Order: sequence, then structure tokens, then C-alpha cells
Amino acid sequence: MDTTMHWPALVTLAAVTLLFACAWYVGAARGKYKIRAPATTGPEGFERAFRVQMNTLEGVVIFLPALWLAAIYFSPRIAAMIGAVWVVARIWYAFAYARNPNTRGAPFVIAYVAWAVLMILASWGLLTSPLW
Amino acid sequence: MDTTMHWPALVTLAAVTLLFACAWYVGAARGKYKIRAPATTGPEGFERAFRVQMNTLEGVVIFLPALWLAAIYFSPRIAAMIGAVWVVARIWYAFAYARNPNTRGAPFVIAYVAWAVLMILASWGLLTSPLW
Amino acid sequence: MDTTMHWPALVTLAAVTLLFACAWYVGAARGKYKIRAPATTGPEGFERAFRVQMNTLEGVVIFLPALWLAAIYFSPRIAAMIGAVWVVARIWYAFAYARNPNTRGAPFVIAYVAWAVLMILASWGLLTSPLW
Repeated sequence: MDTTMHWPALVTLAAVTLLFACAWYVGAARGKYKIRAPATTGPEGFERAFRVQMNTLEGVVIFLPALWLAAIYFSPRIAAMIGAVWVVARIWYAFAYARNPNTRGAPFVIAYVAWAVLMILASWGLLTSPLW
Repeated sequence: MDTTMHWPALVTLAAVTLLFACAWYVGAARGKYKIRAPATTGPEGFERAFRVQMNTLEGVVIFLPALWLAAIYFSPRIAAMIGAVWVVARIWYAFAYARNPNTRGAPFVIAYVAWAVLMILASWGLLTSPLW
Repeated sequence: MDTTMHWPALVTLAAVTLLFACAWYVGAARGKYKIRAPATTGPEGFERAFRVQMNTLEGVVIFLPALWLAAIYFSPRIAAMIGAVWVVARIWYAFAYARNPNTRGAPFVIAYVAWAVLMILASWGLLTSPLW
């Protein structure tokens, strides 16, 4: 595998670690608020933790394919840099949402723009590939 | 990367775009029905939008690995064709569910069959590979 | 593709099949308990089935990237062996949760350890790669 693919691989590890941390946080919130499985409703603090995890899950599933297609068809280094922005914005998003859902707008928009740029680079690289 | 892998890559972009559109639709429904995060319950119209997104998320997570394993171990072109059927059926499913959940049967079955065929091709290609 | 990658490919098929089986089980529980979409709440039996599916979905999304990064950057055979442990633990987890959520601890811990080992092997292999 090309050495430059190491960079999107590192970003992938970071994204997966973030998702794991969110799942861990829900488990801790289950203990704190005494929410026994399978319930997923309860005090606002628990519901926020749960929604952060679900939103991060949704985010990772659209992020990883975009990251790798942009890495393969455009540039691994540029894809990894934009991907790092996405991960950092999503960490910020998780903390913002847990504290006050109304403050999640800014990191959400940054992560969205990073994802959109990855999709555009992937599409452009793929459609203009000389290999068709 | 082999040029024929361009086709499953295109289908992957389409699947990810569909998932993003579903997430967008939930955001719009949050605004329309005034459902403030982290709540995920409310009028039927909001709950439908939310379930479409979750079902699509579940679908994409089992679809993309099946697509790529079928592309790698059987045929990229055939995998991409069947994958395109899956994406179209899932778009139809999303619209049908949003309008009336009882009409989601037909596109669900088509997407299910497309997924099952991908799994069979992937398994067959993998197990009969001369490379073991 | 390297023949040894066949092993993580097989584990991937198993993980995707498990996730599909969980989705199927929720569909069956919808019928049994007469829970019409888009509702996701109801008798404990239905809610357990639903949570098993969601937990498996969350698990697969952090498992597959860890499996493949460990396969690529450390060893496909070792990654596949640990991945097989994860899949078996998750099957056990699904049955345990459906019967009694309080018994899900042991398989959860085993799957968690398998996942953590994959992450460590992937990180170690990636960071010590001679290819940087």
C-alpha cells in the first residue's frame, strides 16, 4: 500500500476512537442516571449522550467512504487533512451537544463543510480519472 | 487501482449521498415540527423521517461491505450494477416510507434481494478463489 | 489482492450477516408484538430486539475499520483470528441481550477486548511502519 495512505488510515483510527468514546459516554450516562437497558429515554443528560452517539455514528458512516474515495481518487494527503478537520469538529460537536444542544451549530457546520469538500474531491477525482 | 473499480466507487458515492439526504430530511423535519434536540419522538411525520434515516443507515452499513467484497472477489461491473439497483430501491423506499410506511414493502424487497445477491456473489467468489 | 486478505474478508461477511440477522429479528419482533412502523417503543421484548440491532450496528461500524487496518498494517491472519472472536462474542451478546439484558456483560467485555486489541495492533503497525 502506498505510504501516503498512512494519513487517511490515521484519520480513520481517530474517527473510530471518537465513536468508541461516544459509546463509552452513553454507558457511563446509563450508570449515572440509572437507565437500565433496553430503555433509551430518560433525563435530558442521558438523552443528549445518546443522541451524540447516534449522530456521530451517522456521521462516521458517511465520512469514512468519502475520506477514502477522496484519498484514492484525489489525494491521500489532502483528504487526510480535511478528514482531520472533520474529526476535530466532531469532537467539538460532541462536547458542545453534551453541554447544550443549542451550541452544536458551529462545529456541525464545519464538519459538514469538510465532508462536502471530501465528496466533491472524490467525485471530481473519480469522474475526471484518466482510467475510465 | 483497477479502472473497473470506478463503478463500485460511483455507487458508493450515491449510497453515501442518499444517507446524507436522509439526515438532511430529519433536520428539516426537526424544524418543521419544532422537535428540539435531543428529542426523537413527536408527530408521525417526524418519526417517519427519523426511521427512514435510521433504516437507511442500517442498510448502508450492510450494503457497502457486500458491494466491495462482491466487486473484489466476483466482478466490479456486476457488483456495481446490482449495487445501483439497491441504491435506486432505497431511494424509492425512502419516499414511500415518508409518504406511507405501509407502502415500503416493494422497494424493501427489491433492495433486500439486491443485497442478498451481492452477499452470494461475494461469498462464492471468495470461497472459490484460486488464491487460497 | 493478497491471498491472506481472504481471512478478514470472510470475517467481514460474517459480521455483516450478523447485523442482517439482527435487523431481521427486529422485523420479526415488529410482527410478533404488532409494533407498526415508525414506532420503536413497546413491550420489553421488542425494545430488546431493537437495542440489540442498534448496539450491533454501532459495534460493526467501529469493528470493520479496526479489522481492516489491523489486517493491512499488522497481519491479516492475526486480525482475522481476533475478528472471529469479536463476531462470536457479538453473536453470544445478541442472544444474551434478547433473553436478559443483565447477562450481556461477559460477551460485551470479550468483544470489547477483541476490538481494543485490533485497534492496538492497527495503531502499532501503522505508527511503526517503515514506509513513512
